[in-house]
Order: sequence, then structure tokens, then C-alpha cells
Amino acid sequence: MKKSVYEKMQKRALEYYEKAGIVLTNDEKARIEVADFGLGAVEKVGLQILTYINTERVCAKEMVLLPYQACPEHMHIPTAGVAGKEETFRCRYGKVYLYTDGDKQKSPSEIEAPIPPTDVTVFRETILNAGEQFTIYPETLHWFIAGECGAVISEFSTKSTDETDRFTDPRITRQTVIEDL
Amino acid sequence: MKKSVYEKMQKRALEYYEKAGIVLTNDEKARIEVADFGLGAVEKVGLQILTYINTERVCAKEMVLLPYQACPEHMHIPTAGVAGKEETFRCRYGKVYLYTDGDKQKSPSEIEAPIPPTDVTVFRETILNAGEQFTIYPETLHWFIAGECGAVISEFSTKSTDETDRFTDPRITRQTVIEDL
Repeated sequence: MKKSVYEKMQKRALEYYEKAGIVLTNDEKARIEVADFGLGAVEKVGLQILTYINTERVCAKEMVLLPYQACPEHMHIPTAGVAGKEETFRCRYGKVYLYTDGDKQKSPSEIEAPIPPTDVTVFRETILNAGEQFTIYPETLHWFIAGECGAVISEFSTKSTDETDRFTDPRITRQTVIEDL
Repeated sequence: MKKSVYEKMQKRALEYYEKAGIVLTNDEKARIEVADFGLGAVEKVGLQILTYINTERVCAKEMVLLPYQACPEHMHIPTAGVAGKEETFRCRYGKVYLYTDGDKQKSPSEIEAPIPPTDVTVFRETILNAGEQFTIYPETLHWFIAGECGAVISEFSTKSTDETDRFTDPRITRQTVIEDL
């Protein structure tokens, strides 16, 4: 991703934090992470993340999805001898369509959200409006996408080890590459 | 605490969640916990707590302190063979004066906040405005008090085991008793 695009996405994320009434320090604003998952289509498959804290035991993040932007399908596997990450998503603003593995699977044509341009294979549908939340236990495939107004999502979890996340789409690389020009 | 007082405190807490722009479901609004710590002076020593999630590994809460209301001094000890609770407080609204054990202790007369009517023995001062946070590791004595506008504080932590919290003030009981009349 070009640096100019990265910075533009950071600014757009800030608008959503403001809409959600979430106060950030200037240092935090400057370190909002933009993830494009290596697919080169950040507005469709991407995520803006502010990590508040990530210790050996606890992690908390505030995430932004732009309208119809999707976080690609993945799961959290055991890492360094510890069970995979357990995470609770709490929608603070907007609407999130969350798809997970497990019972009550829909077919791709039955779900309410559009299918993003990345491989997705699980379709148990949970729709979170502001004030609603859902807990995802380790080794559960999941992906999520915002509604037409975007979304701000708090994540409460065990230690985050993004580098071991297992993505369904083989094209994905978790680390965003920022080009200078 | 009389049930009528409990319900009044729940309603007052709701006003602060609204000021902070935090959206709650009706179910959540109905289960806001009011803790008076058995001291019978809830407006001075008390805490309003909404627990979003509390599993074996992760806990997240949204707490309200009314103006100059204090959470009494305590620490989190190892419980059921697991290290004590680690918690990060993030101020979402208002101002919190946080006092912890460790270096840079002040004297009681030097701190900026008023001394609450409960035993306090640690005075390392950290002042959190909206958007600021602090992490408290296990077995660290701490107490905190809101400024003149009250405060809303997110807590990101390991499993919460309130029943093993060790309070400095011997008069304290963690479980609030609600009287019918």
C-alpha cells in the first residue's frame, strides 16, 4: 500500500472513532494500523486497528471497518504453547455482519451481507448493532464485514499474536507493506 | 443498600454511559451492578459496574464513578492456582485519580484528589483524562476516585474474581446487600 493511501485510511478511520464518541490521544491517532492483508484492495478487504494494550495475558483493540469493508476469514491457533486467542467483539457504532464456523450455517446466497473479494467458507450469521457483542473461541473460523455506515468494534481478548493467524485465502499476508511513494 | 437507592444509582450511572456515548442494550442497562462495599455511603465509596464478558481467560467491564465517588483500596491475589487479575483502566469520559503501590509515593496531603472515607495507604498518583489508560499488574494495591464531573472507565482484564479481592479497609464486604424496602 502506498504511504499516501495508508495515511488517507488512517484519517478516514479517525472519522469513525469520532462518530462513535471514542476519545484517543494524539499518540494513538498516529499509530492506527491499516491492514490490507496483501490483497491490494484495502477499501474492500482491510481493517483499521488501534491496539490499546497487548500483554502476555490481555489484549484490547478498537477496530474500524469502512462501509462494506471486510476482515478476511481466519482463525486463531495455539501459539507458544498457549491456547489460541479468544476474542469478544462489541459493536460500538454502525453494524457488523459476523460469520463464524459452527451450526446454523447459511448458504452464501442466503446471507445478508455482500460476499467480499476474498475466500470465505463459513456462513453462520450474527448481526451486531451498536451495543451488541459476540465471543469467538479459539480455532473458530470467522470473517466480518461492516454495513453501509461502517462500524467501530471493540475487541476484548487474550494476547494477540497476529503473526500466527491462519487465513483461508492463500494470497493473504498479514503484514502490510508500506511503499514510500 | 435499599432497593430504591440501588435503582437510583443505576439510573444515575446510565446518565454517565450516555455522556460517554456508550451504547448499551436494555438487558445490560437492567443489570448494572451497584457496589457499596458494605460501607453504607455509596455516593462516597461505591462503584457502578457493567460486566460485558467474564470468561476463564478474559474480562471486560464498563465502570462509572459519580463525582468524587471512590473505589476503595484493594489488590487482586492469585485465585484457583492462577496469577491475580491484571487490569487496564481506560478513561472514556471525565477524569480519574488513580493511586497505586510502587515508587514515587506522595504523602496523603500532597495528592490532588480528596481522601475518601475508607482506609487508603498507597499514593502513587496517576491522573487519567478521557483517552488515557494505565495497567495495574496483580497484587498491586490500588484505589481510584473520580473528579468533579464523574468518570466512565473501561476495564480490560484477565478473569475477574471479585470474591478474592483483598481490601485494605477491614469493614469492607464486596457483596452488596440489597434490602427490599
